[in-house]
Parts: sequence; C-alpha cells; structure tokens
Amino acid sequence: MSSARAMPDSPAVGVLAVIGVGLIGGSFAAALRSRGAVGRVLGVGRHAHTLERARQMGLIDEAVSLQEAAGQADLIVLATPVGAMGRILAQLKPHLRDETLITDTGSTKASVVAAARAALGERIAQFVPAHPIAGAEATGPEAANAVLYQGRVVVLTPLAENTDAARQRLTDLWEGCGARVMCMTPEAHDVVLASVSHVPHFLASVFMGQVAAAADSDRRLGLAGSGFRDFTRIAAGSPEMWRDIFLANRAAVLSELQEVKAALLQAEQALQEEDGQGLHDFLERAALARRFWGGRSGLS
Amino acid sequence: MSSARAMPDSPAVGVLAVIGVGLIGGSFAAALRSRGAVGRVLGVGRHAHTLERARQMGLIDEAVSLQEAAGQADLIVLATPVGAMGRILAQLKPHLRDETLITDTGSTKASVVAAARAALGERIAQFVPAHPIAGAEATGPEAANAVLYQGRVVVLTPLAENTDAARQRLTDLWEGCGARVMCMTPEAHDVVLASVSHVPHFLASVFMGQVAAAADSDRRLGLAGSGFRDFTRIAAGSPEMWRDIFLANRAAVLSELQEVKAALLQAEQALQEEDGQGLHDFLERAALARRFWGGRSGLS
Repeated sequence: MSSARAMPDSPAVGVLAVIGVGLIGGSFAAALRSRGAVGRVLGVGRHAHTLERARQMGLIDEAVSLQEAAGQADLIVLATPVGAMGRILAQLKPHLRDETLITDTGSTKASVVAAARAALGERIAQFVPAHPIAGAEATGPEAANAVLYQGRVVVLTPLAENTDAARQRLTDLWEGCGARVMCMTPEAHDVVLASVSHVPHFLASVFMGQVAAAADSDRRLGLAGSGFRDFTRIAAGSPEMWRDIFLANRAAVLSELQEVKAALLQAEQALQEEDGQGLHDFLERAALARRFWGGRSGLS
Repeated sequence: MSSARAMPDSPAVGVLAVIGVGLIGGSFAAALRSRGAVGRVLGVGRHAHTLERARQMGLIDEAVSLQEAAGQADLIVLATPVGAMGRILAQLKPHLRDETLITDTGSTKASVVAAARAALGERIAQFVPAHPIAGAEATGPEAANAVLYQGRVVVLTPLAENTDAARQRLTDLWEGCGARVMCMTPEAHDVVLASVSHVPHFLASVFMGQVAAAADSDRRLGLAGSGFRDFTRIAAGSPEMWRDIFLANRAAVLSELQEVKAALLQAEQALQEEDGQGLHDFLERAALARRFWGGRSGLS
C-alpha cells in the first residue's frame, strides 16, 4: 500500500483535485486525509456555496477552477454525474501535466471510457476508470465521511493504454481507504451493475412514483411501514445522477428489465392461479438467496 | 389508557394467550409485560422448541394447547400466518368463555374476517380484527422486543358485532404499547396494504429470485451494494407468511401490480426513447415524494 511506501513528509498524493465534492468525492478526500495520504485538496464544483461548505468542513483546502485543478493536481478524481464527465475531461485536457493521474467514480463505465477517449485523445493513458460501490442516497459534502469505503468494493476497469504503475497506484490508494479492489472490463461492469444497482433503482423509483401519484396517496403513505421504507430508500437519490446512469447504461438496463418482467409475469401467474405451492417455492428461493447474501456480504 | 385504569394488583389483562410466539406475538406480550399490564402469558405454537425458547426468554410463562388457551385466557392474540387463522379459531371456539376477547395481527383483514365469521359463528362479536404495521423480516421469539410497536400504526377493522367496550379495550392495550390506533374497514385496509406492503414484497422477491437464478449470480451478488441491500431486505421474510398474505389479498395485489406495471412501461418508454427530460421528471417526482415521506413518517 502506498501509505507504507510514502515518506513521512511526502504523502501518497501531493495535490488531490476533487471534481464534484459530494458524498463520493468528499469521502475519498476525507479517507485519504484521515491517514495522511494527501498533501493538499482542491475542490471544483458548480456551486460556490457547496464548495465553501466543503472547505469549512475541512474536506477541501481551496475551491479552484478546472484549469487550476488540471495544472496543479497530481491526482484528479471526477465525482460528478456520468453525463458531465466528457465535457469536464475536455476542459481539463489542455492544462494537464504529463504526470497527472485521472480517475472517476462513475456508476457506469463503458460510456465514461468512450467519453474519456474522445476528450483526452493521446492523454487517455492517464485516465484509469473506477467505480466505488458505496451508497449514494445521501448527497452533498455533509454526507461525506472518511470510513464510507471501509470494506466496500471498488471496481477498476483499466484501459489497455494504462501503465501497470498507474493501475497499481490507484489500487493502493483505494485499498488505503479500506476498499477491496476488483478489475474487470467496462462492459462486464455495466451488465452486472445494471442488474444489481440500476434496475433496483429504476423499480424503486417507478413504485414510489406510482404510490405518490395515487388519488389516495396520503392514506397509503400513512400506512407505509418499515418494509416500504427499505424498498423505496434508493428512490430518494439524485434525479440528475440517476438519469445520467440510465441513459449511459440504457441497453443493459432495458435488457435486464425484460428479465425481471419475465420473472414477474411468472410469479403473477402463480398468484392468478392461486398456486400456493408455486408461490411458496418462489418466495422461499428468494428468501434463502437474500439471507445467504446478507450473511456473506457484510452489508446487513 | 388501561394502565391508568388498572388497579395495582389487577393488570389490564389477567391471562394473555399468544398463538404464534414470534416477532409480532412475542413483542406484543413483551410490551404488555414491560408495563405490568399482563398477569400471566400462555403460548401456543407448532414447535415445542420455539415455545421453550420463548419461555426461557420470559416472553411466555407456559406453553399450552389451543384448548387450554381458550379456557383460561382473557385475551387471545392470533399471530400466525393468516391462512391458519380460520382453522385455529374453529379449534378455539368450543372452549371459549363469554368474556374472552380475541384479536389477531394478520396483514390482511377481509380474508381473516371471513374466516373468523365462519369459524366463530355466534361468537363473532368476541373477535376484533387488528393489524400492527411493524417490520417482520426478522422472525422467531429472539426477534421479539417490548418497543417494537412504539410509534407504529395499528389498524383495527372492527366488526358491526363488536361492542364499543371491546374495541376500546383493544385500542387501550395497543396505545399502551406505544402504538397509534386507526380504524377502517377490512376492504379499505386490504387495498391500501396491497399497495404499500404486499406489492413491494412481491417485487423485491421477484427481483431477488431473478438475480439469484442468473448464471452469473455469484458475480452479481459480489458487486451488490447498500442499495441492493435495502431494496431486497423484505425478500428475506417468511415464505409461508407471505404466501398466505398474497393468496388472502390476491385480487387487490394483482390489481395493484397492473398499476405498477403501467407506470413501469411508461418509464421504460422514456428510457427507450432516450428522453432525458422525461426520465429526470419521473425520477425527481419519486425522489421528492420519498424524501417528503421519509421526513414525515418518523421511519427514516
């Protein structure tokens, strides 16, 4: 790990620039700072007041422009909605130094890689795509914390152009935040995340919207309990961020939704036919799978 | 509240019988006991070892038969899967005393009322149907606790035959457990609960089963995060209990599923057409509704 290699007066990252200082970017900065792995943290964002709050909380040392970030940072982390990343990388590019490493935290990878190739051109080797899998229904710098990534998985989808050193450096930094690092292709990442992240968000949002739009929604919501709370929690997430995710991973999400709908139709049919055994079997398979995962994941 | 009316040596309920000593029935007994509102607690169940654990934990004083419970109890609470309640009430009936009050904790009400009418006949006035809305993905007496119902809603669906005194007595007992009591018809209850409880459980189970059945389920589950955890948590619930709920509330659940599928189709179409504004609007409505409910419900 880089903390082991770093000299006492030489942190693993001299200057870190976080583009988008919210839960994800802010927690990465906080995690590095908490173990002395970063010298100076620059923040870039659309809203001056958010950056000022992040500065007051000690997440960043200074709010800067994209140009300043590109010129000064040793490591740049893009923690914005995925739809904005191509534009941001294009703005960074003319000011980048050769030794600067760039990464991201986007929930989709193929679209981000395509946007990065278009934006960075011959500098693409400096960009190592990543996705830390950590909760994001709380938003803003106030939600950031130094332990968010402890025990969580971070997926790297390295490019053929990336050097082993660049990939290793990023792996070391994430492991230093307490995360487990896995590597896969952007396409494999996107298919799996469509299934276990994007489709649940889509379904939770559809369901929440349907209940809220009902004529008797007040009565319904007054009788909603802890199961409803858990099932709909992710629907509170950032509309902008999730719109970008769905658009960026559209084909995989639509395809996975077809699979879920086929399974739904089968379960509905068992209910329609009052097939108690069929219902029980379907519910039992789901319950056993969920309990097994819950015991193994360390998440519940 | 009955605790205020009870004499020091005369608890609100002299002898309580709990049929099904798990989370729901056990927590009711624990809540009454914690404020000295019950004299003696009898437990009835299918599994001797579960009752013995409940006795060792102090939830019940003695395991008895249905016949003994009917003959001795002042209040009988049915906390079994709803599909078993008709049979149990029929077994209790020949041994019931005139002054015994019976209630239940079932998640559906119209089917329970119909089963109770058929089983109890001229004794139907002694049965006041109820549904405490409290989490149930943890099961068994170990999950029981005296504060489960604090701040939760308990729906009573009183029958025309119930006396005001019987309804008031049950209201007092539940309020003594810290719950808020609401009254409505069994049919209105079932339609609302289909929407905010039964359909989410159905969808979470279908989704969990679909992910677990995938050829690459290990890889998928290895990258599942906190959103997946929350969205699927209810799918771990008792297959038997939920099979009964779905069968008992079949028409309302199937009808509500059609509404959700219509909303899903609309959202899918926005994604299919890459309609970013439409996607954003649908996600924003859901997010605002969920955040508003979260702030108001006291549940999250």
